[in-house]
Amino acid sequence: MKRIRSIKSMQRVVRELTIKKKRLSLVPTMGFLHEGHLSLIKRAKKNTDIVIVSIFVNPTQFAPNEDLKKYPHNMKGDLRKIKKAGGDIVFTPDAKEIYPEDFQTYVTVEDLTKTLEGKSRPGHFKGVTTIVSKLFNICHPDVVLFGMKDYQQAIVLKQMTKDLGYPIKFIIAPTVRERGGLAMSTRNSYFTDEQRKEALSLFYALETARNMVKAGKRKTAIIEREMKAVIKATCPSAKIEYIAFTDFNTLSSVKSIRKDTICSLAVRVHKVRLIDNMMLMQHKKLK
Amino acid sequence: MKRIRSIKSMQRVVRELTIKKKRLSLVPTMGFLHEGHLSLIKRAKKNTDIVIVSIFVNPTQFAPNEDLKKYPHNMKGDLRKIKKAGGDIVFTPDAKEIYPEDFQTYVTVEDLTKTLEGKSRPGHFKGVTTIVSKLFNICHPDVVLFGMKDYQQAIVLKQMTKDLGYPIKFIIAPTVRERGGLAMSTRNSYFTDEQRKEALSLFYALETARNMVKAGKRKTAIIEREMKAVIKATCPSAKIEYIAFTDFNTLSSVKSIRKDTICSLAVRVHKVRLIDNMMLMQHKKLK
Repeated sequence: MKRIRSIKSMQRVVRELTIKKKRLSLVPTMGFLHEGHLSLIKRAKKNTDIVIVSIFVNPTQFAPNEDLKKYPHNMKGDLRKIKKAGGDIVFTPDAKEIYPEDFQTYVTVEDLTKTLEGKSRPGHFKGVTTIVSKLFNICHPDVVLFGMKDYQQAIVLKQMTKDLGYPIKFIIAPTVRERGGLAMSTRNSYFTDEQRKEALSLFYALETARNMVKAGKRKTAIIEREMKAVIKATCPSAKIEYIAFTDFNTLSSVKSIRKDTICSLAVRVHKVRLIDNMMLMQHKKLK
Repeated sequence: MKRIRSIKSMQRVVRELTIKKKRLSLVPTMGFLHEGHLSLIKRAKKNTDIVIVSIFVNPTQFAPNEDLKKYPHNMKGDLRKIKKAGGDIVFTPDAKEIYPEDFQTYVTVEDLTKTLEGKSRPGHFKGVTTIVSKLFNICHPDVVLFGMKDYQQAIVLKQMTKDLGYPIKFIIAPTVRERGGLAMSTRNSYFTDEQRKEALSLFYALETARNMVKAGKRKTAIIEREMKAVIKATCPSAKIEYIAFTDFNTLSSVKSIRKDTICSLAVRVHKVRLIDNMMLMQHKKLK
């Protein structure tokens, strides 16, 4: 496994691999890898010859009041995990390499970022689409993989990929959950054991929603009320930022559950902002 | 010479060429080609194996009040000229191919677009950087060429190329002028013979500026006053949008001429908006 730090080296290696007809995949990460990331790397390995994993804690997608400074990292552990999962190249540029002093170019997706996370975290997606676009240009992958936990991010980036004419196949892989149901997230590392149980409130709420839909309920207002009660019961101090019912592809809000409705929510659990989501009527084939 | 209309075909051809180790250059145009464009194609041919010329009148870089609808075109003539100049592939997508109905992703360069053309034509550069970025992603060139006449456009795109990590060499080629000095421009075709003489006012003003600098003058305010007089004398109905003295690389305004000062101006001559520019102290080596 090769570790590359500079853009120039990465471009040179990618060019050589392309000439050799290798198919490349890219798994962009911010490091501190968990099973969710590793599932993406393993899937990438099945789909392409060479798996590139990028590790870059992207400052432009954090607002000033967010957790950029305390975001956890463990490069040694990450490299070991990536190697074991089948990664071939790890791209680990530093912030100056990606954002030199006169940096001033941004990529934005306009409509899909107006709601949910885009509304709660102004500027967040501008940072995400800019860094991923730059990673695309440097790594020139044939396939890129993102996790369903950050589902809006995946939809936004898929739109960007299509709109800007990148010849890249887009894979959205299922959320990996801990045994109890908590969606794997780097931010789970902020919790004590006790808080971690309360963090299950998101999953319990989503399960409640899915069970209500199974039982024939369709009105989102009623389901939402029940979800709030479940969250409060599991984590009394929880601060719900949003619970949303939207069309999977367009992100437009729905009042009554339909086939492609996804429920997503953002909740602060002991000051840690968590998100999660679930398709409510079907196991949608995600590809 | 091959003409390609679809993004998919273009991507396939580019991939095949890259695997064959061919070096590709791209000359983005809006068609109705003149000697300025052809000089870019010829230079591209000297630098790379395969020259791709794109012809696309990009709607997103025109404001509603601008000349998108009457912008001239002559595909047959263009194809003949490109072939003669050494072009290998002509990429001619239509507007729906580039901007499908749900298109919503834009690339913007922030600081360098705040002045000159960016100030006069709000939104213009957002359209330019978006289309060129898309062309980069589709055509994946090793070298791209732009003309010095649209000098701020070249500087902005060069910044975008660097910021977003495109492995593309950037060439800015000198402005080609008609015998009298009028900078070649598609928009010159709007003029009658009489008006064309008045359009020389921009070149005369720039020549005046350069001569004043040769004679030791440095204060831009004094030079600007003289330039205005020259424009009014050549074209009494001219409407000057701006005359600017800026640093070539940073576009920051200067009050006294220095080595890297470029003078650029935008003038409406019989309702046709023309731009031109000149380095005032040296023939800057443009590469």
